[in-house]
Amino acid sequence: MKINNILFVSPLNQEIQDLIENYALEKEFRYLTEDELRDEDLVWADAFVSFKTRSSYDYSKVTWVHSLGAGVDNFLLQKNWNENVILTRTICSFGERISEYCLSYILKDLQFHNQFLYHQSDKHWKPITPKMLKEAKVMIYGTGEIGQQIAQVLSFFGAEVYGVSLSGKQKQFFKEVLTVDAHFSLLNEMNYMINTLPLTENTEHLFNEDIFKHLSSIGFINVGRGESISESDLLQALELGQIRFAVLDVFRDEPLPQDNVLWKHPNVVITPHISAVTTSEEAVECFVETLENLEKDKPLRNIVDVKKGF
Amino acid sequence: MKINNILFVSPLNQEIQDLIENYALEKEFRYLTEDELRDEDLVWADAFVSFKTRSSYDYSKVTWVHSLGAGVDNFLLQKNWNENVILTRTICSFGERISEYCLSYILKDLQFHNQFLYHQSDKHWKPITPKMLKEAKVMIYGTGEIGQQIAQVLSFFGAEVYGVSLSGKQKQFFKEVLTVDAHFSLLNEMNYMINTLPLTENTEHLFNEDIFKHLSSIGFINVGRGESISESDLLQALELGQIRFAVLDVFRDEPLPQDNVLWKHPNVVITPHISAVTTSEEAVECFVETLENLEKDKPLRNIVDVKKGF
Repeated sequence: MKINNILFVSPLNQEIQDLIENYALEKEFRYLTEDELRDEDLVWADAFVSFKTRSSYDYSKVTWVHSLGAGVDNFLLQKNWNENVILTRTICSFGERISEYCLSYILKDLQFHNQFLYHQSDKHWKPITPKMLKEAKVMIYGTGEIGQQIAQVLSFFGAEVYGVSLSGKQKQFFKEVLTVDAHFSLLNEMNYMINTLPLTENTEHLFNEDIFKHLSSIGFINVGRGESISESDLLQALELGQIRFAVLDVFRDEPLPQDNVLWKHPNVVITPHISAVTTSEEAVECFVETLENLEKDKPLRNIVDVKKGF
Repeated sequence: MKINNILFVSPLNQEIQDLIENYALEKEFRYLTEDELRDEDLVWADAFVSFKTRSSYDYSKVTWVHSLGAGVDNFLLQKNWNENVILTRTICSFGERISEYCLSYILKDLQFHNQFLYHQSDKHWKPITPKMLKEAKVMIYGTGEIGQQIAQVLSFFGAEVYGVSLSGKQKQFFKEVLTVDAHFSLLNEMNYMINTLPLTENTEHLFNEDIFKHLSSIGFINVGRGESISESDLLQALELGQIRFAVLDVFRDEPLPQDNVLWKHPNVVITPHISAVTTSEEAVECFVETLENLEKDKPLRNIVDVKKGF
């Protein structure tokens, strides 16, 4: 496949352009803002590269759409996708980044950071034995590149890691992978639960009372999408102690609105969608790698199955 | 070597006794407190098992002394050791425990836990890109079982790990191991520095202005011994920004006295000597393993070189 005209539409355009020039690619580039973008640009382009775009644009004329983020719900949800158009996404170091994010909050809990901080403020010398990762059981929703990398990291430390996926297909680093329907009976043994699932019609509000009622004093980390959680059910599960604490990096509305009660909940940690940031360097590296693979007809590890939505 | 009479002197005696009974060892045991211990018990014993003891006791009559802790400075410092007496120490999962402790505080820093907590309290949505372990350079003092295990964990994530030891002997998981004399020029590149060294005459007050003056905005973790640090020099290095923050698990005087200024220092985390706790289960497991190896004349991975002091 030959790609010549490449159209970037992103707030990172200037940084991306500077970095792209280092590669000396023999291609034509246009770098535009969403406001500048015209239909004729899409007619001109072979490739369209962006984080997300307004649904009104018609991508059907380009050959390849590349998402600068890991999530592609902005491209696919409630849209008809021309299946002749290849859709790829940025993965790069997302798995590493999200793994370190999740691990940091699990270790914070196991090592009793909050308790020791509290005792320090009282000058109170009170030994408590930290728990070890090898004593922890973790359920990871999503067994793709990101979920699997979290599983690899946690199992390196001897944690017992289970996965939940659409297919229930077994994968390395998981003690067992289950389908959603089959996983309920294991939930009450879990110490931590991590959502990495993409937003699709199957995952919207997946985390609701039906799952939460099986939990007992769990730590819940959401690095997937905010829309996968029923916020009212989450608040109830925190109230009932089914969820001991929640670490939330993604929300239905971002930035999280000032009047959202999660901000002030004592058992909720809010981070501003930073667990898998795309740096310009990584975005460009991943884009160039994908472009090369595409032109050489090599397999694409970051291609999106548009029917599944991820 | 035949060991028959075993003397335990420890505050964990009751738990240890319950656990030892599961092994059905055909040995004679005495479980005593320090106050109950008499010279005749030491004459009776082949093996003496304890965390630490008063210097007045004469161990020279037993065949084997086993420390229930990892550190043996209480047995050796300022004492004449009868070199015919074998000294072993508990290692077990100390390496794992200390690794998870250190990792938890490094990740807390890289993932900006404090900053996000602070922003949350203001309902302030302010993305900051977490740093990754693969961008970090770490100097570990001590390349024995514990230091090496920390190096293994950090290098699993791609961190660049250097070691400092008496011999400067190269070891796996370290990019380079240096002697104290040769390591100064590397210090200003380091992001983190971890002390795991045992307390010996060589390591007392090793961490003083001579090392600190080479540092620039480092995170310092002490899981070795409190006496290895000059507290006044540490406070000055914090003041000067040579040390950005310190995580201290060990202190010259434990519990840390109420009037110690470290308690209230904004850039110091105090934990009450919990990074490598000996649980009774692990202590007994390690003791039984050592006993078996000793009786079968197998090599002992936890034997102490009494001349070196560790």
